[in-house]
Amino acid sequence: MQISVYPVYTVLERESLPGATAVVIDTLRMTSVATVALHNGCAGLRAVCDVEEARGLAARTGSLLGGERKALKIPGFDFSNSPLEFTPEAVRGRRLVMTTTNGTNAIQSVLDADEVFLGCLLNADAVAKSVAGRERLVIALAGTAGRFSMEDAVAAGAIISRLGTDCALDDMALASHTLYEACRNNIQGFLSSALHYRRLESLGLLEDLRFCLQEDTVPCVPRLGADGWFHAS
Amino acid sequence: MQISVYPVYTVLERESLPGATAVVIDTLRMTSVATVALHNGCAGLRAVCDVEEARGLAARTGSLLGGERKALKIPGFDFSNSPLEFTPEAVRGRRLVMTTTNGTNAIQSVLDADEVFLGCLLNADAVAKSVAGRERLVIALAGTAGRFSMEDAVAAGAIISRLGTDCALDDMALASHTLYEACRNNIQGFLSSALHYRRLESLGLLEDLRFCLQEDTVPCVPRLGADGWFHAS
Repeated sequence: MQISVYPVYTVLERESLPGATAVVIDTLRMTSVATVALHNGCAGLRAVCDVEEARGLAARTGSLLGGERKALKIPGFDFSNSPLEFTPEAVRGRRLVMTTTNGTNAIQSVLDADEVFLGCLLNADAVAKSVAGRERLVIALAGTAGRFSMEDAVAAGAIISRLGTDCALDDMALASHTLYEACRNNIQGFLSSALHYRRLESLGLLEDLRFCLQEDTVPCVPRLGADGWFHAS
Repeated sequence: MQISVYPVYTVLERESLPGATAVVIDTLRMTSVATVALHNGCAGLRAVCDVEEARGLAARTGSLLGGERKALKIPGFDFSNSPLEFTPEAVRGRRLVMTTTNGTNAIQSVLDADEVFLGCLLNADAVAKSVAGRERLVIALAGTAGRFSMEDAVAAGAIISRLGTDCALDDMALASHTLYEACRNNIQGFLSSALHYRRLESLGLLEDLRFCLQEDTVPCVPRLGADGWFHAS
């Protein structure tokens, strides 16, 4: 398997997508939220860029609304972007429309791929199993406001480490794998100096951070369906 | 000192440059060439994007011509992009116009900074001494054809490690430093799986690779002068 990692989705080469399987990673917190919500029985999740578009789509489809702007809950929404809110009781059997700053845009950037999955640390092992055997894997890191985010590279490295040694890595894939191996014994300690971690910590979201930085605790991989919604796989 | 590293110069935020000191890194091989040529007595070096522009500027200023396209020498040029060619005998007292694929474009992207230096592994320690005490350092990695290149991150990490612990690192600076620390005992071995290393190796340029991947062997830092030429500092 050839693995290409893009340090920020904005530098993704669109022509690399047809024929490839894409994984979008926004560890803190959008793809972690999607993984948890779908695992807990959410009937489908859609990511849109714009708040008003999210409200309109949720109204038309009877969906719940979640997301953030500047890491905080949007007025009138059912959920913020905290994975702890998406309990089975809250989401089972319901559709969910999400709008977040980075993850949603990153998803839009890979829509030309043959398949689109969402990955994070929580489902690293499940993602590796889902994409095993594919010829080309393109991993788009969401980053934060157009900048590289360490926690996304570490999650990419976690997935790559679970894919085994029979992969051809591009330089950013090699970097992600090396970063993961350097911190795998203390991921939270290592990431505590990363910018987005510190921003969420300063907002009192330490529980979210602890939750999102666990590995392999959620055996669910959000997969984009032909209907434009992500479903559990 | 605040240190920001951009994984590829194309994502550089131009508004971050005024008030900052910029370092451009193109380890394989443009900034290594510039470091060696100026150390060996070259009177001034200019980097331009276009081959015909390079020819014209060299003709008007009586300069030597160096550079590459697809890693190979350009017809009629005095030098390729191999640092081994820029001996004291070849360059002393002469000006040099260079055109290369990645490094030259990366330099163009940081011209709004207060100061512009060129860095690589060869002059990592000298760069750290040159920029010590600045408030904000912006490091632009040249990469290869718009993609992240590992050897540039490793060189950035080498510079950051020599700046000591009293620096505030953004996530890519932290990543670069971590990658450097992970490979510092075997830089060439680690980089031998990187894409640009392998391309140059396949072209028979192993001597260039060995040369460029030495640390702290050239105590010279190319610095952009008010005349638009890089000079030794």
